[in-house]
Amino acid sequence: ESFAAPAGVIGVGVDQELISAVPSSNPTFVTRNFTTNEIAYCRAQPSPPSSFAARWAGKEAVFKSLGVKSKGAAAAMLDIEILNDEKTGAPAVTLHGSAKAAADEKGVSKILISLSHSETVAIAFAQATSS
Amino acid sequence: ESFAAPAGVIGVGVDQELISAVPSSNPTFVTRNFTTNEIAYCRAQPSPPSSFAARWAGKEAVFKSLGVKSKGAAAAMLDIEILNDEKTGAPAVTLHGSAKAAADEKGVSKILISLSHSETVAIAFAQATSS
Amino acid sequence: ESFAAPAGVIGVGVDQELISAVPSSNPTFVTRNFTTNEIAYCRAQPSPPSSFAARWAGKEAVFKSLGVKSKGAAAAMLDIEILNDEKTGAPAVTLHGSAKAAADEKGVSKILISLSHSETVAIAFAQATSS
Repeated sequence: ESFAAPAGVIGVGVDQELISAVPSSNPTFVTRNFTTNEIAYCRAQPSPPSSFAARWAGKEAVFKSLGVKSKGAAAAMLDIEILNDEKTGAPAVTLHGSAKAAADEKGVSKILISLSHSETVAIAFAQATSS
Repeated sequence: ESFAAPAGVIGVGVDQELISAVPSSNPTFVTRNFTTNEIAYCRAQPSPPSSFAARWAGKEAVFKSLGVKSKGAAAAMLDIEILNDEKTGAPAVTLHGSAKAAADEKGVSKILISLSHSETVAIAFAQATSS
Repeated sequence: ESFAAPAGVIGVGVDQELISAVPSSNPTFVTRNFTTNEIAYCRAQPSPPSSFAARWAGKEAVFKSLGVKSKGAAAAMLDIEILNDEKTGAPAVTLHGSAKAAADEKGVSKILISLSHSETVAIAFAQATSS
């Protein structure tokens, strides 16, 4: 069977960002906050600024779903990686370093995520779950 | 007891649409994408364009919660029906055809949904669950 | 162990509000709809109108997650209290009176919530869960 195991909910997070307010053309901002794979993905999309803004909103939403404050620090945002499944195109979260440690401490085994953007605004929803 | 059985989470989906960007006054668009009951409901609301846009966002969010890409095809959107409970007014999802098959394949037994619109923007959140 | 118990899903709610449309400078509106602790919190924030609007969206989202319609009545909104955890800053929901009764009737033991606002719009997501 290929059924996903149903998961219990530990926390939720929602975030919105004005696309014009996310400085995705600033290389320092980008390399501080996005992994190499995220950057490659966003730059290959029809609208890279929209894709960077949606991921930025996604990272903030993941922080909120863990019940910890966004540190604003470089390492913290890099520790939340959001990449799209090659087959389905759906975004998926991988945690590293301090974000992984925070999740482990709370019994979070998986974070579900969804992203959306209009012409001007990106929104994201994250759900921290425990199987 | 009338308690709902608690459900496990399989996927989440969020979507937003500019109300002005959803061509709800185009009869071909409407009949291709909305069921007879959905059309009757939306046309009876104070602002039909807002109601059609919210439902459109809802259908996109349901697709995302199933981890499959929106096909953009007529049949696919018609297979996701969002109607409001007569007693509570809350929206509820019924799947048909290909959408039902995709849900079955992933062990999804119920999809929870919530819709919201301002003057200009409709947003929707969907959650695919397994009991 | 400090693990939160994973919870089952009973309902979801999403809401958005134009910050300028929430009359947070009207003392009658504020005292009818927000608790003393909520008012103190919102007034201490960098942008009280944004904080009041986010909480207002949050209360609407909680109503939707319970599958009951917002009454628009004073008592109902006061019965949903959203305060921020002193340690983490994350918002948490406490129900009183009629809202508590509605939750009990549906087997809802906890409501998770997340809030977000841009310069102009506040959005909220709520999830009613059963442990």
